[in-house]
Amino acid sequence: MGLENVKVVLFDTFGTIVDWRGSITRFGERLGRDKGIDGVDWEAFARAWRAGYQPGMQRVRSGERAWTGIDTIHRERLDEILGDFGIAEHLGEDERRDMNLWWHRLDPWPDSVPGLVRLKSRYLIGPLSNGSVVLLASMAKRAGIPWDFIFASDTFKAFKPDPAVYTGAIELAGLEPGEVMLGAAHNDDLAAARAHGMRTAYVNRPYEYGSDQSVDFEAAEDWDIVGETISDVAAALGT
Amino acid sequence: MGLENVKVVLFDTFGTIVDWRGSITRFGERLGRDKGIDGVDWEAFARAWRAGYQPGMQRVRSGERAWTGIDTIHRERLDEILGDFGIAEHLGEDERRDMNLWWHRLDPWPDSVPGLVRLKSRYLIGPLSNGSVVLLASMAKRAGIPWDFIFASDTFKAFKPDPAVYTGAIELAGLEPGEVMLGAAHNDDLAAARAHGMRTAYVNRPYEYGSDQSVDFEAAEDWDIVGETISDVAAALGT
Repeated sequence: MGLENVKVVLFDTFGTIVDWRGSITRFGERLGRDKGIDGVDWEAFARAWRAGYQPGMQRVRSGERAWTGIDTIHRERLDEILGDFGIAEHLGEDERRDMNLWWHRLDPWPDSVPGLVRLKSRYLIGPLSNGSVVLLASMAKRAGIPWDFIFASDTFKAFKPDPAVYTGAIELAGLEPGEVMLGAAHNDDLAAARAHGMRTAYVNRPYEYGSDQSVDFEAAEDWDIVGETISDVAAALGT
Repeated sequence: MGLENVKVVLFDTFGTIVDWRGSITRFGERLGRDKGIDGVDWEAFARAWRAGYQPGMQRVRSGERAWTGIDTIHRERLDEILGDFGIAEHLGEDERRDMNLWWHRLDPWPDSVPGLVRLKSRYLIGPLSNGSVVLLASMAKRAGIPWDFIFASDTFKAFKPDPAVYTGAIELAGLEPGEVMLGAAHNDDLAAARAHGMRTAYVNRPYEYGSDQSVDFEAAEDWDIVGETISDVAAALGT
């Protein structure tokens, strides 16, 4: 079954569609100016916040912890690191709650929306993300990301690479696995999608993590599509 | 808690947002012309097809039948009635399969998209429908319905008024029940939403069923909003 059978194109979102590191850094710099908080390396803060993401999800994936949404995982990590960066004493509860919503307001990479608009002309498109429905819908609304629907971790009560996410997405799409494609900047996400029979598109995002990045500088397997932008994926799919 | 706390506005879709009777009738009339099928009352055909909807869902709701999606229920009913209308001998399998997708291509009532665009400026909006994700996403894409996300029967593996749909929607919205509103043309759907603590908006659609319509000519309870159009709901919610 070739790419001509693809009907639905899903995308990982954090890192693939949106630039979390740049966005959180910018929000931090703005907060620092507004609050007169000096001397914070906001880019290091962004990476430290993100560093709690996989461990937080792993406790849920492993069954150590009952289903817990991504907003809670983000918030717990925020509370862990605020002190380390000398920010805690500047912020009350309302401000912390608003900071947690920075993840709902991430900016897309410049090529994302143009590429998705092209893809949407022929395919049903949606995220397949460890974000929540509300996080992803709020982000899409603010940034003009034109999803047809949203497949989120709370749709399936599971985090990638839990098989329930991929099989759940294929089932909700009402299609054969080979009619559904996942686009992602992460080789491990694509490997999981391929293991479930999905088509795969690698989008190279070598600047996702900055100085913390140690993997995903190139395609690690012969993915069905390999590109530098979402527009490359759109072109490879004939749009 | 007043309407100022509403953050997410969901809508029943068949009958409330889209005119299934007029749409199926028009598709039928076009098929009749294309195929030279004479003498069919396509409006009666539309109502007969729809008449299989509640009984088909009820077998699932009651537990008599395992989870079965709406496309299958539509298709089974189609196969039941094609003979009665003298259409069966004109149609092969491919044509029947395409007919079943008429439900993915229903036209909105004229006020629906303008009203939803207004609501979307301030609220997260989505369907809360017994349709499927793919049916609702395909319909939205064709008609320009600007949903932020899609809550469908296959999201919850249940059909309204099963409580799992309302409680599942509130949970996915990540909100208190009173922060979520359901808009619907059906008093029983609103009664179920209210029973779960949701806010309610009645939209009067007295022409939904045509000569088959026996209920829902007016608001049966003191719903939070009562209007004739989606724009009336948008206005009542300050957009």
